[in-house]
Amino acid sequence: MSYELWYWPDVPGRGEFIRLALEAGGIGYRDRSCEVGGEALMRDLAGRRPRPYAPPYLVAGDLCIAQTANILLFLSDRHGLAPADEAGRHLAHQIQLTIADIAEEAHDVHHPVDAGAYYEDQKAEALRAAEAFRERRMPKYFGWFETLLEQSGAGWLTGARWSYADLSLFQLVEGLGYAYPRRMATLAADIPLVLAVRAQVRALPELAAYFASGRRLGFSEECLFRHYPELDGA
Amino acid sequence: MSYELWYWPDVPGRGEFIRLALEAGGIGYRDRSCEVGGEALMRDLAGRRPRPYAPPYLVAGDLCIAQTANILLFLSDRHGLAPADEAGRHLAHQIQLTIADIAEEAHDVHHPVDAGAYYEDQKAEALRAAEAFRERRMPKYFGWFETLLEQSGAGWLTGARWSYADLSLFQLVEGLGYAYPRRMATLAADIPLVLAVRAQVRALPELAAYFASGRRLGFSEECLFRHYPELDGA
Repeated sequence: MSYELWYWPDVPGRGEFIRLALEAGGIGYRDRSCEVGGEALMRDLAGRRPRPYAPPYLVAGDLCIAQTANILLFLSDRHGLAPADEAGRHLAHQIQLTIADIAEEAHDVHHPVDAGAYYEDQKAEALRAAEAFRERRMPKYFGWFETLLEQSGAGWLTGARWSYADLSLFQLVEGLGYAYPRRMATLAADIPLVLAVRAQVRALPELAAYFASGRRLGFSEECLFRHYPELDGA
Repeated sequence: MSYELWYWPDVPGRGEFIRLALEAGGIGYRDRSCEVGGEALMRDLAGRRPRPYAPPYLVAGDLCIAQTANILLFLSDRHGLAPADEAGRHLAHQIQLTIADIAEEAHDVHHPVDAGAYYEDQKAEALRAAEAFRERRMPKYFGWFETLLEQSGAGWLTGARWSYADLSLFQLVEGLGYAYPRRMATLAADIPLVLAVRAQVRALPELAAYFASGRRLGFSEECLFRHYPELDGA
């Protein structure tokens, strides 16, 4: 089975959650987002049946799977990227969906009023939204990840081996560390287990080749996680 | 297997997507949200392992499943609430996740800056957010549901029989019809197949007892879908 990943070019965005799982799982795939531009992507999407609502989507033979968490579930069921039992399987998926929620909130901070308008046109609202996100939302979400790791007691979110949820937590911490370096620095003391997962993922032998390849895309102000210094704060 | 649904009392919210699936599937459950208050709910949640991030969650023996779409996937796999093949299963889930996205956006319209603050304290921002939501987001999402129904050609989103995705689309249309009656009226001409699904779900024999029971909770300004006339518009 050969997979094709379709996503916006040049940004990690939601596609990177899928790339990390494909890479760590040793799953062969063709990254179409590196080959085509946004227009070709939209043309391809419009021709799919069933048509995905938006990128990313994964083409697997006759199948076309969209929504990041759905794609990860699909890959995990086929390639064992999470525990196979009902409890672990649905726990990994629950965590992934919650990571999607905070990632979406992180996006909405710089686009609180209109996702289709420029940040500069909603900056006053974004300043207010950033305060709420830093002071209440980040501690609440990260407190939950920390609790899960305490309850797991095994160093990873869903047990003694990494799952796609751990890879996604790594990407979330990386993204928010880029966007909110000052806030993440003050949060650090409260989330040692989360930061341990970040370090463990960074050191995974399964990801060494990917990290060394230069293929991993950097964060920027065109993406989910954006660094606007005025939105950060301790 | 006896299920317990835990959610905030007195509001349909995200819990209603699950209730509709349980009711239409003829699945026995105990609705704990009708029995306990918010404090008891929070106490119960804090004692669960793994602890859910937020309600709703479903308790099934030793299992505790959270995140609405995850719960629906779990129930569907056990009770056949969507096609069993890979394509249909992941299509239903993709649709559910996209319905979750628009429901979240509908919530963010009246809370664009801070979900923890009052609507009245972010009304100016909400007026701007509502315009973008009505003019661009609602047509984009509903256009996609309409396209899926055209592609399906069978009257339901995932084939010739209803799935939990159709029930959720019904709930979404009901909710947005409550919140934005003027906008939904002008959109109606463009989404005949979506409105047909709404009518079909309303007439499902499997749901007749539930709809007649008086147990179905009404929308209000304490919930996801809120009617603030100043946010509506044709």
